Amino acid sequence: MPESYHVDAYKVEGKIDYDQFAKQYGLKPIDPELTKRLEKYTGPLHFLLRRNIVFAHRELDWILNEYEKGNPFYLYTGRGTSKGMHLGHLMPFMLAKWLQDKFGVEIYIQIPDEEKYLAKKDIDMSLDEIHSMAMDNVLDIIALGFKPAKTKIFFDTNYANTMYKNAVRVAKHITFSTVKDAFGFTNESNIGLLFYTAMQAVPAFLKSVEVGHNVPCLIPLAIDQDVHFRVARDVLGKLGYYKPSIIYTKFLPGLDGTSKMSSSEGGNTIYLDDPPEVVKKKVFRALTGQQATAELQKKYGGDPDKCMVCQYYRYFFEPNDKKLEAIFKAERNGTLLAGEHKAALADTINKFLKEHRRKKERAREKLDKFIVSD
Amino acid sequence: MPESYHVDAYKVEGKIDYDQFAKQYGLKPIDPELTKRLEKYTGPLHFLLRRNIVFAHRELDWILNEYEKGNPFYLYTGRGTSKGMHLGHLMPFMLAKWLQDKFGVEIYIQIPDEEKYLAKKDIDMSLDEIHSMAMDNVLDIIALGFKPAKTKIFFDTNYANTMYKNAVRVAKHITFSTVKDAFGFTNESNIGLLFYTAMQAVPAFLKSVEVGHNVPCLIPLAIDQDVHFRVARDVLGKLGYYKPSIIYTKFLPGLDGTSKMSSSEGGNTIYLDDPPEVVKKKVFRALTGQQATAELQKKYGGDPDKCMVCQYYRYFFEPNDKKLEAIFKAERNGTLLAGEHKAALADTINKFLKEHRRKKERAREKLDKFIVSD
Repeated sequence: MPESYHVDAYKVEGKIDYDQFAKQYGLKPIDPELTKRLEKYTGPLHFLLRRNIVFAHRELDWILNEYEKGNPFYLYTGRGTSKGMHLGHLMPFMLAKWLQDKFGVEIYIQIPDEEKYLAKKDIDMSLDEIHSMAMDNVLDIIALGFKPAKTKIFFDTNYANTMYKNAVRVAKHITFSTVKDAFGFTNESNIGLLFYTAMQAVPAFLKSVEVGHNVPCLIPLAIDQDVHFRVARDVLGKLGYYKPSIIYTKFLPGLDGTSKMSSSEGGNTIYLDDPPEVVKKKVFRALTGQQATAELQKKYGGDPDKCMVCQYYRYFFEPNDKKLEAIFKAERNGTLLAGEHKAALADTINKFLKEHRRKKERAREKLDKFIVSD
Repeated sequence: MPESYHVDAYKVEGKIDYDQFAKQYGLKPIDPELTKRLEKYTGPLHFLLRRNIVFAHRELDWILNEYEKGNPFYLYTGRGTSKGMHLGHLMPFMLAKWLQDKFGVEIYIQIPDEEKYLAKKDIDMSLDEIHSMAMDNVLDIIALGFKPAKTKIFFDTNYANTMYKNAVRVAKHITFSTVKDAFGFTNESNIGLLFYTAMQAVPAFLKSVEVGHNVPCLIPLAIDQDVHFRVARDVLGKLGYYKPSIIYTKFLPGLDGTSKMSSSEGGNTIYLDDPPEVVKKKVFRALTGQQATAELQKKYGGDPDKCMVCQYYRYFFEPNDKKLEAIFKAERNGTLLAGEHKAALADTINKFLKEHRRKKERAREKLDKFIVSD
């Protein structure tokens, strides 16, 4: 990885070069041939796919081959526990939900409540506190509209009879050397975290264990988690399972234009529980591509690629490509001024969040239909 | 450790110097003051204690202090799965059973079915096969007469909701450096085995987790397992639990006089399912302290300390000290000849095994009363 950015499971820093990342780790671009094949089954593509925000894959073509042969896949994704989820966290789940709907497939959602506990050196939270924080994250996920009959959500620590036993089978084939190189662990890393990647591998073949024959698995993933599956794919092959296929989403940028909206950068991050006035304040501080004054902006126009307001429409809030182009055009030709531009986005976000929170409240009653434990 | 022997969790070799081991790792001898205190509660001591086969301890005095204060302990021991158990495997359990009876306390017995799977590089057994092998070991343990109402036996892989969650809490405080130094792991060790010691630590504080306050724990242990608790005792202190106390038994020697009866040394090892004629054959090949001929033996006598037949009475088959002394005396003064000496031991062992197997058959019906899972 070049010095200018860093992406691994426990740290994302700098300006991410997605093409370089794809090249370095052998990800394939999602090319027109592939999107055409997808469209055959899904109809019009999700805007994340149309806009190259889902930008790369591993063996998505193979998943479609198998699907065409009558061997459908299941989806697997997960959610590393955090205090409160932000907009960026929702993106892979929105894609996963769309895939579930379009292909009519099952999804397994892992909640690795132990990982956060193990990864943070100075965390003063108990595992129980993290567990209940994770439960709040689950409500945000369910709120997106997953089908209860086809969705299985589990916490590592209370689905452990299933998870630990299968993780042990994976762990036997992974050495300290491997995780040291892959994750940058040192001799001072704790043994729980060294082991953890084996737990994250399990849902990628769990369905095959359950039904007793190999079932293809497709993982919608943010690139920081790729390292887990670079390790796991090799091992799963050795254990006689299919290697999981993966499609990769780019990160939603921070409001300041950094590559990734981050939980620890409060001011540049819209949390799902931010009240309207906080959202507004944050959006008004966003980086825009606009000129120094309204006059100059009218004269020269702005750059929608650098304007986070435009980008938030692109990544999240404007599914309609024509409307998005209109926004971009208005930005370019200077007819849209920063103030109204931001006010409109803040409104849109607040409407989304209000609706999301309403769905989240209703998710509470449905929890039992989603969560499995053993 | 001196070059002449090696003892750790995954290898025992050479002639063990128990005093040296105790000194090196800070174990205390079980002195007359301590045995007197024990006797106050147990009545006459178990012969393993009387004969210095239980030879050392960590904080047994503290366990008795707490007991006297009305804060009783529970016992914890375990059984690393093996194909078939041998006589040596039973010793710590016989001691544990005696302690359960005399103090009227609970015992937790861990069956780490994943450990064997992770530790053996070339094992061609699946985790399921090891699990059913372990189930056979459990029958041998129950056959010793543990009280079902006060005994809890669990397999790591199907008590994992309890075990994994608590192991994670331990694992967070153990680094790769620590397990590398303690167990001799290398960069090529697998991450399952690196993590495993955290699983073995859990039963030492599990009772405290269950009841919500600290309960003293006493572990009857063979010295090869001490390394796990040298690591765990520190961590449990950090987590706010009592450090477990430990009493150590020496290994039953092999029939050839090696320090430890070993599963992989079939000819020198009496397995619990050896048929009578096999037992006889093995015993007749045992090392004795006797002279080269019957005539010389009658003239000079033998050395009971070097005679494995005498030692098997001492370690296992003659609980009565006076009768044992009579056997030793007969060996010393040459009135006992090798042939009859061995024939008598073989008979005694076969009687024991016959009775053990009868009890083992009956244990099958009681399994449910002992095994907990979650």
